[in-house]
Amino acid sequence: MARTCVSSLFVSLDGFAAGDHVTFDKPIGDAQSLFGWFDGRGIDGVDKVDAPVTVDRALFALWGQGIGAEIMGRRKFGPQSGPWPDDGWRGWWGKEPPFKTPCFVLTHHPHEPVEFDNGTSFHFIDTSPEDALAQAQAAANGLGVRIGGGPSTVKQFLQAGLIDFMHLMIVPITLGQGVSLWEGIAGLEEDFTIESLSTASGLTHQLWNRKG
Amino acid sequence: MARTCVSSLFVSLDGFAAGDHVTFDKPIGDAQSLFGWFDGRGIDGVDKVDAPVTVDRALFALWGQGIGAEIMGRRKFGPQSGPWPDDGWRGWWGKEPPFKTPCFVLTHHPHEPVEFDNGTSFHFIDTSPEDALAQAQAAANGLGVRIGGGPSTVKQFLQAGLIDFMHLMIVPITLGQGVSLWEGIAGLEEDFTIESLSTASGLTHQLWNRKG
Repeated sequence: MARTCVSSLFVSLDGFAAGDHVTFDKPIGDAQSLFGWFDGRGIDGVDKVDAPVTVDRALFALWGQGIGAEIMGRRKFGPQSGPWPDDGWRGWWGKEPPFKTPCFVLTHHPHEPVEFDNGTSFHFIDTSPEDALAQAQAAANGLGVRIGGGPSTVKQFLQAGLIDFMHLMIVPITLGQGVSLWEGIAGLEEDFTIESLSTASGLTHQLWNRKG
Repeated sequence: MARTCVSSLFVSLDGFAAGDHVTFDKPIGDAQSLFGWFDGRGIDGVDKVDAPVTVDRALFALWGQGIGAEIMGRRKFGPQSGPWPDDGWRGWWGKEPPFKTPCFVLTHHPHEPVEFDNGTSFHFIDTSPEDALAQAQAAANGLGVRIGGGPSTVKQFLQAGLIDFMHLMIVPITLGQGVSLWEGIAGLEEDFTIESLSTASGLTHQLWNRKG
């Protein structure tokens, strides 16, 4: 089943899923501590990492299952703003971005596609969530589409009613400030069946499935 | 990391993981109710089934991740006993067995290999757990090996200290009789770190990781 998914999104207790002040050195801005709670390894499979198979890791590894394309906000690709500088930036991920699929970056500013040998490619589009999703679905080869963040992008797709499944990892910390996943949204839970589950690590996993 | 795994093994509260009286009509013998608790769909990925992504299903889908070969007991392949009859039996699974890897069937009785177009093949071997594992590892192409059951086969490999990871799905029913996973084993928990987690369905998942 080809779903539109939000996968393994870390959210603080006060609802922030990214920080302000993103720079080349700080991809998550001031919210880096969101990612200190889990080592982030094994996102593409529990077997890819020499570490125990925990519930946290098994659920984290849902990230890649059945996904054929990603849509992301501009901030996820890089810290630049305004027209793209000619700085040779190819994303945060070095030569082996984890995506291994086409990725669509939402931006008002045109940019040539960026391609990697491992199947990852970035395509820069200036369009609505609905149209971005249609483009990503066409590229996904029958598989699902991941809405990869940041939180503002996820919120846009949630508000447009386009998300079928969302896996949140609620981190038991407060950030006080940052980019909120929830600000301006109310009553979203009415459209979903929600399963919550806490593990020994202190993380709470929430699985949101859109009601059928 | 290439692990030797027991995956998604259903066990009753009284420790039975299969029933007596296996026949051509009853692959699990009298223990069919073990499998009534979960629909069994999506074993090869949460995206393969048009059903909500629950914790039960996400953990169930660990089954195929990173697995390149399976070892099974004879009873898992078929209900026959003694020398194999010339009955054209090719397993319970029709033309598309879910394994899609080489499978090694432990039996004292010789049998020609059975091969399917979808990558599944069955090889019949009469050997020790250690040697069976070596053969399966050689066939697994660098991936892990699943010890696929039934419970007697799993117990053999547990007793030989060959299991790295085991995922049990404890079903809240009692069977009263059947093939026990635990009979004759004591103190196994000392060798593992165990995470237990119950879900809204009533199932309890246990993830056993061998201590490093």
